[in-house]
Amino acid sequence: MKIYINPDKSEWSELLKRPSETVGDIETIVNAIFNAIKTSGDKAVADYTSKFDKVELTTFLVAEDEINDASNKISKELKEAINLAKSNIEKFHSAQKTDRVFLETIEGVECWQEKRPIQKIGLYIPGGTAPLFSTVLMLAVPAQIADCDEIVLCSPPNKDGKIADEILYTAQLCGVTKIIKVGGIQAIAGLTFGTETIPKVYKIFGPGNQYVTVAKQLATKYGVAIDMPAGPSELLVMADESANSAYVASDLLSQAEHGSDSQVILVTSSMKFAEQVNQEVKSQLKDLPRKEMATNAINNSKSIVVDNFETALELIDEYGPEHFIVCTNYNNFFVDNIGNAGSVFIGDYTPESAGDYASGTNHTLPTNGFSKAYSGVNLDSFLKSMTFQKISRKGIKNIGPAIELMAEAEGLQAHKNAITKRLNDLK
Amino acid sequence: MKIYINPDKSEWSELLKRPSETVGDIETIVNAIFNAIKTSGDKAVADYTSKFDKVELTTFLVAEDEINDASNKISKELKEAINLAKSNIEKFHSAQKTDRVFLETIEGVECWQEKRPIQKIGLYIPGGTAPLFSTVLMLAVPAQIADCDEIVLCSPPNKDGKIADEILYTAQLCGVTKIIKVGGIQAIAGLTFGTETIPKVYKIFGPGNQYVTVAKQLATKYGVAIDMPAGPSELLVMADESANSAYVASDLLSQAEHGSDSQVILVTSSMKFAEQVNQEVKSQLKDLPRKEMATNAINNSKSIVVDNFETALELIDEYGPEHFIVCTNYNNFFVDNIGNAGSVFIGDYTPESAGDYASGTNHTLPTNGFSKAYSGVNLDSFLKSMTFQKISRKGIKNIGPAIELMAEAEGLQAHKNAITKRLNDLK
Repeated sequence: MKIYINPDKSEWSELLKRPSETVGDIETIVNAIFNAIKTSGDKAVADYTSKFDKVELTTFLVAEDEINDASNKISKELKEAINLAKSNIEKFHSAQKTDRVFLETIEGVECWQEKRPIQKIGLYIPGGTAPLFSTVLMLAVPAQIADCDEIVLCSPPNKDGKIADEILYTAQLCGVTKIIKVGGIQAIAGLTFGTETIPKVYKIFGPGNQYVTVAKQLATKYGVAIDMPAGPSELLVMADESANSAYVASDLLSQAEHGSDSQVILVTSSMKFAEQVNQEVKSQLKDLPRKEMATNAINNSKSIVVDNFETALELIDEYGPEHFIVCTNYNNFFVDNIGNAGSVFIGDYTPESAGDYASGTNHTLPTNGFSKAYSGVNLDSFLKSMTFQKISRKGIKNIGPAIELMAEAEGLQAHKNAITKRLNDLK
Repeated sequence: MKIYINPDKSEWSELLKRPSETVGDIETIVNAIFNAIKTSGDKAVADYTSKFDKVELTTFLVAEDEINDASNKISKELKEAINLAKSNIEKFHSAQKTDRVFLETIEGVECWQEKRPIQKIGLYIPGGTAPLFSTVLMLAVPAQIADCDEIVLCSPPNKDGKIADEILYTAQLCGVTKIIKVGGIQAIAGLTFGTETIPKVYKIFGPGNQYVTVAKQLATKYGVAIDMPAGPSELLVMADESANSAYVASDLLSQAEHGSDSQVILVTSSMKFAEQVNQEVKSQLKDLPRKEMATNAINNSKSIVVDNFETALELIDEYGPEHFIVCTNYNNFFVDNIGNAGSVFIGDYTPESAGDYASGTNHTLPTNGFSKAYSGVNLDSFLKSMTFQKISRKGIKNIGPAIELMAEAEGLQAHKNAITKRLNDLK
């Protein structure tokens, strides 16, 4: 990690730049596949699955005995681990339930706000080298708490036409109603338009590569909501000399192993600490199976030495990290004042891994500075809030005259008439 | 309004289709203006303002004396009306504040969720024939309650280079920090990239024509969030013979006057009532200043006679109306069971106008069936939720082994290492 010492504010924006992506070409491919799926449904799904996943499938729906088989193959220990994580995630997301907000704003005018479930949702779980069953937990558990009617999970088949056992097991454990073997752009297109096998949904959740990300973006053009725009995962650690450099290095590496485009940043008040972390990173890197990826990510990463905490906070807020670990003697200063971060991890014994898997918080978080405007996935992501109002005769008399004046000033006579008609009858 | 009697379910989707728009050409224009504003800032803003708004401006920022002048020109009565509306909107949106959610999910693992303001937001208020100061109330009031630092309002100048007095007055009343005379695509581009005058913001709110809608969509590609995708406004009224046909007609017309592309639908259990409403609409239409627009909208609109309430509810849920008025002898059935609607208006004395202006609920609502997945604007639209966690030695011992197992099963060794390092030290 290259070390930068007290960089001038004018250099921050360049220094904090995320690795950028070009999406021009991808859009053409995504558009073509969307059109094919819209027109030809399952037939097109089969064609693209053959092309991209190298497997010929005639049915995409996972059958019950496949799920049972998968469940039998998971070790007792892993099942217990998944159960522990599920229990914590359930507790924390259940605690996010809110009551109906009811208010009589003025005599006779009752207004309330209620949250109701998004009825049909789609979860996308990538395939590839690592079976991300932890993401199944993070999406299906709150969906079930929110009481969504239809929870459809799509994940690409491997060359044997299968989805990883861990994903199938976790999906059935968390109330997924339909598991479908379809991946990539064709999965997102299927969830957008619906096919013979894939139900059309109202909102799509889940991570994916650049193709999936662009496909989700396109889905919004067809009226389907998405959890949030995605980008490569990232971690910023704020540490002073009170922190443990070996722990900090292990956290930076756990982020770096996600992929070559992952970004990790260390902000520290101590040059010496930055150097210690660099040493530790070097030594811990050696034994990692995903060493190559992690090394690339580490090479793109930065240590920034800042000589006061106010400046550090300002810099972190400008970056808006997805994951923010703070290990200093002044943690409360950062916790109380940070404005932009997806999830904050406090102290030596709170590694990012904890939130990735089992503490109870959600790991689907805004990357790419989106923490400035977006929440991470939480219970509300599976609900929408609706308002209601009921006005009595007394109520319309109380607010009617104001509405008449305002509607007239906006030049909307029919809006005024709707009030006047009622007020006249009440005279 | 054309009357449809007990349409077959297979015809619903065609019957409930919204008027569609073609956005192909618009995208090219929007892209060109975004590029120009990104490159040339205020200079490009001036050029497009000259081109589209037919006025030459050298400064875009509204000066304090312009606001004072505007304030002096608003009648005392209108000010009082605005104050009443503001007070109700304030009360209802303040009531939506939520507490920090704090939970020890397992001994030693403390997780919490807090909402913090989106620091910089942009409000777009259209110009044109009607000065929509009510929308200023609906956006700026909750932004102020949320404690957003920077609230920038953009609205196009008229041919005299001015913004309507009502908009200026309401903006300063509700804590807008900067008012800028810029409209259309150039306003959205300015808020996206920032110019010498227009601050770059994190989220853009507000209605607009098709150009503004496409521009807001494009802004999301550059990492700026938006309130929600937009479409023409719409109203669905569910009424039986217990309802007042004159009131229902006045409500349908108040929606219809928004524009020729507005959509109004009446669902009723009574053919006779549908005919009465048609009569009333005809007679009330005559005196409307925006008669032509309203007539066009009414011509596109439908009365659907359905002979049982369960079917009616199912049909309404499939449509997912922005505004839903229910005036029947069984209002609770609809209120309790409706899954998809932006805002629900209950009973004879609760016209849509009430929520448009002064009852306290927000009038920025999901159109185009987006109520299936999106909330209307509410206090949370100006906040993002962040999670925090703090784990003790005891806590990491409790969840660490499960994390190790799960990380290993996902093939993420560095995630496991981050735990193992800590657990080893605690042995």
